[in-house]
Order: sequence, then structure tokens, then C-alpha cells
Amino acid sequence: MASRKTAGPSGALDPDFIVTVPDGDNRERRICGHCGFVDYDNPRIVVGSVVRHDGRILLCRRAIEPRKGLWTLPAGYLESGETPAEGAIREAREEANAAITICGVLAIYTVRRLGQVQIMHRARLADPVISAGQESLEVGLFTWRDIPWPDLAFPTVAWALNHDRAAETGGTAMPFFNPPGEDGDLQRFDQATGAAG
Amino acid sequence: MASRKTAGPSGALDPDFIVTVPDGDNRERRICGHCGFVDYDNPRIVVGSVVRHDGRILLCRRAIEPRKGLWTLPAGYLESGETPAEGAIREAREEANAAITICGVLAIYTVRRLGQVQIMHRARLADPVISAGQESLEVGLFTWRDIPWPDLAFPTVAWALNHDRAAETGGTAMPFFNPPGEDGDLQRFDQATGAAG
Repeated sequence: MASRKTAGPSGALDPDFIVTVPDGDNRERRICGHCGFVDYDNPRIVVGSVVRHDGRILLCRRAIEPRKGLWTLPAGYLESGETPAEGAIREAREEANAAITICGVLAIYTVRRLGQVQIMHRARLADPVISAGQESLEVGLFTWRDIPWPDLAFPTVAWALNHDRAAETGGTAMPFFNPPGEDGDLQRFDQATGAAG
Repeated sequence: MASRKTAGPSGALDPDFIVTVPDGDNRERRICGHCGFVDYDNPRIVVGSVVRHDGRILLCRRAIEPRKGLWTLPAGYLESGETPAEGAIREAREEANAAITICGVLAIYTVRRLGQVQIMHRARLADPVISAGQESLEVGLFTWRDIPWPDLAFPTVAWALNHDRAAETGGTAMPFFNPPGEDGDLQRFDQATGAAG
């Protein structure tokens, strides 16, 4: 997935946003000082999946920042007009050349600081052949005890792995949400796991 | 909720976006011809709830366009940094002065044409006192047979009411998704219900 909110100068002016409450609104928004364009800071939807095959789980090692070199689940920003399941299928294809079948919604996480809502699915490989996509250095299928816990890219990856395991055991209602007291803060996660920050 | 993507001229220039693929991306995006700002067309998250009290369901008659005068569930755009449950609680307060308790995630709907993902919850009134908020003409608690079906504002309102009833009966896994073949198209909905388009 491409990073959002990255502007590259392509014209004569620099971006120049002011913060004010637009007419008919009740919150401050960023408004372009040049043309009046309102940049609503909508929360962004990340979609992804915990993909299982023969009891193992698909992980991708990130080829791009942030968290390059660390392991993640196939996931990324939902595109406009996609269903969350379609987005999760696309991300698995883009990042791991993986064909997956969605089994259900595993979890809905909120990463408040980033304004992200993450919709994570349970999925199965429809075809066992996988390979690194453009945004992955390598991909692999991991048994539970081989999961590289200290080298996971994001807190939500650890949450989803544990929630998927709980769902596999059964008896627990889905979707799951943020673990109690957890906000997806990366610094705290790195302190806990010892991963390179 | 305020409408999104509405720009009001406040500066010297008119908005002037070109459509092209930014560096490092794989899709066309709208980019400001003046300053290079990338306007990612992220899907927007609508959050809301089916709120029950003594077997009746809370509906709000819309005081604003679109679909002014028609009945809807308390729902609106999620703000950045909110959890979906927090957003649903805020919308019930804003639209019906209602204090609600969230019971779970009822459904995740996609309205493809609008680039919307709707996360609907099951909820209960924490306090029976309700009244019309700024965006509502009136609010009320309806028994199932009193629901104004021909005057519902959106297809997703009808879906959520029916899914909530199925959940109340029990034995059905949540969250629900779009009914088979349904895309949330308003024109088809109006033809089906006979509501004023």
C-alpha cells in the first residue's frame, strides 16, 4: 500500500492549510488557504487477514517503510468501492501473490493515534503457492512456535495472531477488539517485544 | 454529520485537481495542480446503531439532506481517533440526545457507489429520555410493526433493522453483511419501498 497524506510539490505553490470550522460543520478541519478545499481527516480503514494453511500462518517481511524488514500480516488500506473482504483478498495477492478465501471477520481494531480502523479477517489459502510481492522481502508459512514474535512490525499483528488462535480454539465470540488498555502504540510495543524501533 | 468533500471557496484560486498516479503508488489519485496535495479518495466509515428499549427501536426523522424528512437510525461519519463504538455513541447523542450502551457489532455493510463502509452496532438505551437533536426533526421508539418502512431514508437502515431482528431471535452469527445481491443503491430501494425519491 502507498502511504497516505504524502504530498509532493508538483505546482507553483506550497500546500498551505488553515484550521477552522467549515460552514454547517461542528469541528475544526484543514482548509486550503489557496482554494478553500476542505481536507476532512477521515479515519482510514486498514483491511487484512490471518491466513492459515495446514495449521501454519502466512507472514510477510516488509520491503517498505514503516517497519521495513519486520514481519506483518497481509494488510493495507481499503480502496474506495471495495468491500473489506475484497480489500483483504487484494492485499494478500499484492503482498504475497496469495489466493485466499475469507472465512469471517476476526477483529475490528482502532489505532487511535493514526486514526485507523483495522478490519482483520480469518482466511485460508486457496492455493498453496505463495511468493513475495513488490512490498515484501520474503513471505512464509509459520507454525505457532516459529512465529518471529520479537520481529513483528505492528502491535495489531500480535493481537490478530493471538485472537485468531483463540478463534481456532473456539467458544469465543468474534469480532475481537483492542485488548484491554491497548491503543496500538508502537513505542510501548517495541519496549515489550525488544524489536528494533 | 457534515457532508464530506464539500469545498467552499475561501481563497484566491479555484480548486484544480488533476488525476494521475503519484510516485510509489499503483493507482490514479486526485492531485492539486496548484500545490501537489494528494487527495486520497479513502473510503469513509459510517458508524451507527440499532438502539432498543423495551422491545422498541429508536428512529430519527432527518432534518437535513440527503433524504430530509425520512426516518433513519442514529448514524454518521466516524471521526479520526474514535473507535467505531465511540462514534456510534456520539451519533446517538447528537441525533437523538440518547445515552446508549453498545452491545456488539451487528453488521459491516459496503455501499460501493459511495465508497462507504458502515459499521452498525446493537445497542440499548441507558436512559429512556430522548429528544430530537440538531439533525433530526423528531425521534421516536417504534414497535416492529409500527416501523415506517415506506419512509426509511436508506437501504442500509432496512437491512440493519432486519438483521437486528434476526440477531434478537438468536442463533445467527454476527456481523451480518450486505444482503445477497444488494449494493445499497438508493434508486432501487425507492422503487421497492415506494418512498419519495
